[in-house]
Amino acid sequence: GKGDTCSGEPSIDFPVSVVLPAGGTGERTGLHTPKQFCSLLGRPLISYTIQAFERVSWIQHIVVVVAKESMGLMADIIQRFQHHKVLVVSGGSTRHRSICNGVLALDEEGTAPDRPRVVIIHDAVRPFVEEGFLREIAVAAKDHGAAGAIRPLVSTVIATTSEGFLDHSLERAKYRASEMPQGFTHHVIRQAYQRCTEADFEFGTECLHLALQYCGTNAKLIEGPPTLWKVTYKKDLAAAESVLKESLSESACMITGGRTAAAALAEAFQKAAGALHMGLDPIPDVTAENSRYLLKESNFIQVSINGHCLSEVEALIKALEEANPAALHPLVIIWMRVLTEDEASDSSTAAPTSALLDMASTAKLHQILLYGIQFLQSKDSERWQRSVTRAAEITRTLIRERSPALVGQLLQA
Amino acid sequence: GKGDTCSGEPSIDFPVSVVLPAGGTGERTGLHTPKQFCSLLGRPLISYTIQAFERVSWIQHIVVVVAKESMGLMADIIQRFQHHKVLVVSGGSTRHRSICNGVLALDEEGTAPDRPRVVIIHDAVRPFVEEGFLREIAVAAKDHGAAGAIRPLVSTVIATTSEGFLDHSLERAKYRASEMPQGFTHHVIRQAYQRCTEADFEFGTECLHLALQYCGTNAKLIEGPPTLWKVTYKKDLAAAESVLKESLSESACMITGGRTAAAALAEAFQKAAGALHMGLDPIPDVTAENSRYLLKESNFIQVSINGHCLSEVEALIKALEEANPAALHPLVIIWMRVLTEDEASDSSTAAPTSALLDMASTAKLHQILLYGIQFLQSKDSERWQRSVTRAAEITRTLIRERSPALVGQLLQA
Ligand SMILES: [Mg+2]
Ligand SMILES: [Mg+2]
Repeated sequence: GKGDTCSGEPSIDFPVSVVLPAGGTGERTGLHTPKQFCSLLGRPLISYTIQAFERVSWIQHIVVVVAKESMGLMADIIQRFQHHKVLVVSGGSTRHRSICNGVLALDEEGTAPDRPRVVIIHDAVRPFVEEGFLREIAVAAKDHGAAGAIRPLVSTVIATTSEGFLDHSLERAKYRASEMPQGFTHHVIRQAYQRCTEADFEFGTECLHLALQYCGTNAKLIEGPPTLWKVTYKKDLAAAESVLKESLSESACMITGGRTAAAALAEAFQKAAGALHMGLDPIPDVTAENSRYLLKESNFIQVSINGHCLSEVEALIKALEEANPAALHPLVIIWMRVLTEDEASDSSTAAPTSALLDMASTAKLHQILLYGIQFLQSKDSERWQRSVTRAAEITRTLIRERSPALVGQLLQA
Repeated sequence: GKGDTCSGEPSIDFPVSVVLPAGGTGERTGLHTPKQFCSLLGRPLISYTIQAFERVSWIQHIVVVVAKESMGLMADIIQRFQHHKVLVVSGGSTRHRSICNGVLALDEEGTAPDRPRVVIIHDAVRPFVEEGFLREIAVAAKDHGAAGAIRPLVSTVIATTSEGFLDHSLERAKYRASEMPQGFTHHVIRQAYQRCTEADFEFGTECLHLALQYCGTNAKLIEGPPTLWKVTYKKDLAAAESVLKESLSESACMITGGRTAAAALAEAFQKAAGALHMGLDPIPDVTAENSRYLLKESNFIQVSINGHCLSEVEALIKALEEANPAALHPLVIIWMRVLTEDEASDSSTAAPTSALLDMASTAKLHQILLYGIQFLQSKDSERWQRSVTRAAEITRTLIRERSPALVGQLLQA
């Protein structure tokens, strides 16, 4: 059947669950925190990976296997980010023991008809896995007993002599790097772990190898996308954060209040933002049909022409908090304050700098980053265009960087 | 002899030159620009790699091999960033043809006694290579004819059947990834290219393999540091930029003008910055002995207590431009304006926002990013401490992000 897939691909009509070994100590990142718990934009890496599975409708359970000392931390993460398909299990002393614990936990979960037909195994530190590829792995695992992601080799692989000299190089075209996710029928993965030796549990690395050796199952290999990459070093955390920031800064929603002057600004701003590869949706407000933006958009520009109107910002913050009580990412609000030339020379319309700073400090506690940009509604069209362009550049930077230290600042465009 | 090495390791007393193949088209980054020419903090990636070799005193020439259509671009880069050891050569249709062109160009460069004893081959997209490791490769190449960097495999390597199923996995401990740099005696690399076949030129990937097959030279393999990683995908550009930004934001120099109030601020600021893992050197000015900071420091905080003193910032910009006519990185100046409570309530000391914006626009043309931070010299010590902490957080963010769009802003701490 088709059901809830949006891609038109065949839906998955058999139960699939996931085991996510996350017991690593993260030595290679050069950080104290194991890398799966390192924070990206205020949220631990593993929470992104869990979300990647939770949003797939045909995945039932996600068993996360963590070191005993991380059980409390993991429980906190699940509560804080409202994960709802996760079962946390204590890990073993090696990767295979941890995965095996996870598979056994699936057996205990629920009654027989609930048991997964296919078990997907993935790394907690590969957060960018997508539904389409998971589907391919699940279907191939069901059809062939086992399936795994592969990627072309990035370096030539060589064999060394015991004295540390080149023995020979492998012909690159014949080999592939084995990556994650991998999928197995429940039957194959259980049998592989039942039959394998202590040495396999201790030193083995590949589940695919166990399936071959102990079940005679040659896994189907599927080339995965580059987004399957694994966060291994400290630099990879920066790369992952950059990928996230890029995806969060593709668009913004500009709230005009339905005022004519603001709508004209929105039009000019849309062009300037477009030149910076940022989409802009102008809307009059976030009520009725437009309330969907509160859930789908991560960036809001509240335009204010004629007077302060920080009250509009306050209302927007409230609406976002209500719509999004456990926001997965920090949201950005930019208060865009446009002054007429009269207002600019009138001291009673002085910038409300401390009110903005205070409001931003409070909003930050709810994962909302508030910034301000101020400029003159000049009658000189060249000057006006320059301000709009600069406002767009500043907006793009604030949205891209999402810097907590700069909230509450009123910048000049 | 010892000579000019600062590490106490044996100096290199034989001529060494470098070939840097940079003809790649960068398809994998998903960008239009080949990745070696992509900009990191305003400077192309390849310029960082060239610099990594130029600063090594015992390296003579660097032959950069680029596609014919990039010759002009490369000449611009050399001029703009004042590279002085580089010879640009047009590439061949494959990686091996390009490297071979580079090696032949070394033969033509200068007379026989100038010819390199050892040729190091490296990738333009591995900018973080360090002198110590280059020394190891050069010495091993001289002693054994060939040497190459290796790294542990990050993924299991598997062999596939022609139908796309798992055939077998390799035992990870027996294999290594072959990385760059590699080194060869001039004799070995020339002979390898003289003897190899058209098929090698067309399809081969490893120089180490040619040295083994055609010269009987088993390369010495040396485990390299993780910093040898290669910029391959778009995300890797973000990672490289993050590594650069991290190294540029470790410290700042605070110019107090020798004033007592500023020295007291510097002391408090030093503590707050230290808590954010940023070192701070307070100095009275950048004259005499302290002028060395103009060359070695990338971040300056000009403290201004009592009045505007944008003139001090202007003088600092001028001093930096004179000391650093071709700055390799954008430099940061933060103007820290501390107001007494009297000044804050006096409208004649209004913030010089447009003067600061103008000065910043001009400075940006010379790779100097100027920002302002303003706060009250409060008598309330708790409030004062809060401002200092906030100023440190803002400073850290501005220095870390180096955002061109935010220059000229006067932020409130
Ligand atoms: Mg190679
Ligand atoms: Mg693996």
